[in-house]
Amino acid sequence: MSTLYDKSLREVIELSSSKSPTPGGGSISAIAAVLGLSMAAMVCNLTIGKEKYKDVEPEVKNFLDAAEKLIDRLVELTEDDIKVFNRLMSAYRMPRASEEEKEAREAAVQKALKDATEVPMEIARVCLQALQASCRLSEIGNKAAVSDAGVAAVMAEAALNGALLNVDINTPTIKDREYIDRILAEKEKMLAEAGELRGQALAAVRQRIKG
Amino acid sequence: MSTLYDKSLREVIELSSSKSPTPGGGSISAIAAVLGLSMAAMVCNLTIGKEKYKDVEPEVKNFLDAAEKLIDRLVELTEDDIKVFNRLMSAYRMPRASEEEKEAREAAVQKALKDATEVPMEIARVCLQALQASCRLSEIGNKAAVSDAGVAAVMAEAALNGALLNVDINTPTIKDREYIDRILAEKEKMLAEAGELRGQALAAVRQRIKG
Repeated sequence: MSTLYDKSLREVIELSSSKSPTPGGGSISAIAAVLGLSMAAMVCNLTIGKEKYKDVEPEVKNFLDAAEKLIDRLVELTEDDIKVFNRLMSAYRMPRASEEEKEAREAAVQKALKDATEVPMEIARVCLQALQASCRLSEIGNKAAVSDAGVAAVMAEAALNGALLNVDINTPTIKDREYIDRILAEKEKMLAEAGELRGQALAAVRQRIKG
Repeated sequence: MSTLYDKSLREVIELSSSKSPTPGGGSISAIAAVLGLSMAAMVCNLTIGKEKYKDVEPEVKNFLDAAEKLIDRLVELTEDDIKVFNRLMSAYRMPRASEEEKEAREAAVQKALKDATEVPMEIARVCLQALQASCRLSEIGNKAAVSDAGVAAVMAEAALNGALLNVDINTPTIKDREYIDRILAEKEKMLAEAGELRGQALAAVRQRIKG
């Protein structure tokens, strides 16, 4: 299946810049998270097999496996983000002449809004895992590439924030109050943890550059 | 000329993940900034021509022009980042058997370190312009796409931070104290302004989603 990832970077940028609303902020955040994870993977690859980092090698190997899995997951979620947006637009375009049509349209819109909220939430969850790994890598990965571990961390945090803005834009229209409360609580928790991890990663990078 | 931007996104990610140190954090930051700018351009394109946003149209048109120019500049800087890294590695590999060789090598290393500092500084300067534009777009751009303006802002801020980590990693080895002091002062100023602008953009996005 041809995906955004099969297009050239130049084409992706042209598509994103156009007035077509997809790919939008959710997909772009997922791609940025993938780019960040590619830096985490590079740091792993520059650490594994080095005598100096023998002690942390098992942990770093686990991170490399994890980074590859998280990249695959984000590639799926990038496409999902486009699909759920398109489904939401289709739902909004449903007829609403009769009461029955109005009800069917509203049910479809509410369902599509939840899907369009779940996908960026899941992108944010994956970003948080990427950020946790990148933060640890800034502490234990090859010191010569420590700035790249820091780049991995800032990208993951930005992607998490970017994805969650797409949650913010959907939730006001969702009527299931219980669902919204649960999502917003999880969102706030992720934002707080991400901010802390980014600070921790940047501090570790600066410390190791000095030391 | 074939550049990273002509490769598929999948290939870029494979290249970045590999143990080859290029593309590294500077280039990846530049690409993330381009992705952010593509969202800023999309917001402009979704604002221009809309009756509701007629008053801000001239300003938004200027932002669209600026975004396109900043993207072109970052595409150049992505390649420059790879070139200066390779030149620095070549300088480190120069012979140092005699005193003359040692001196020539040290001069080449110092020159290459400054180039490898200037490129990420310039990436950061472009990111700051991208962030200023994205912040204003979150305030005045099409409200339906306000979360995408927010994504543009968080991407620009992350890319600025990521690029500047590549300044941090080079400056300790640079001997020209006056140069370092000037660079570090500019760096701190940019970091502070970027943090403030990101906060301002996120607040504007959240405010407009509510309002």
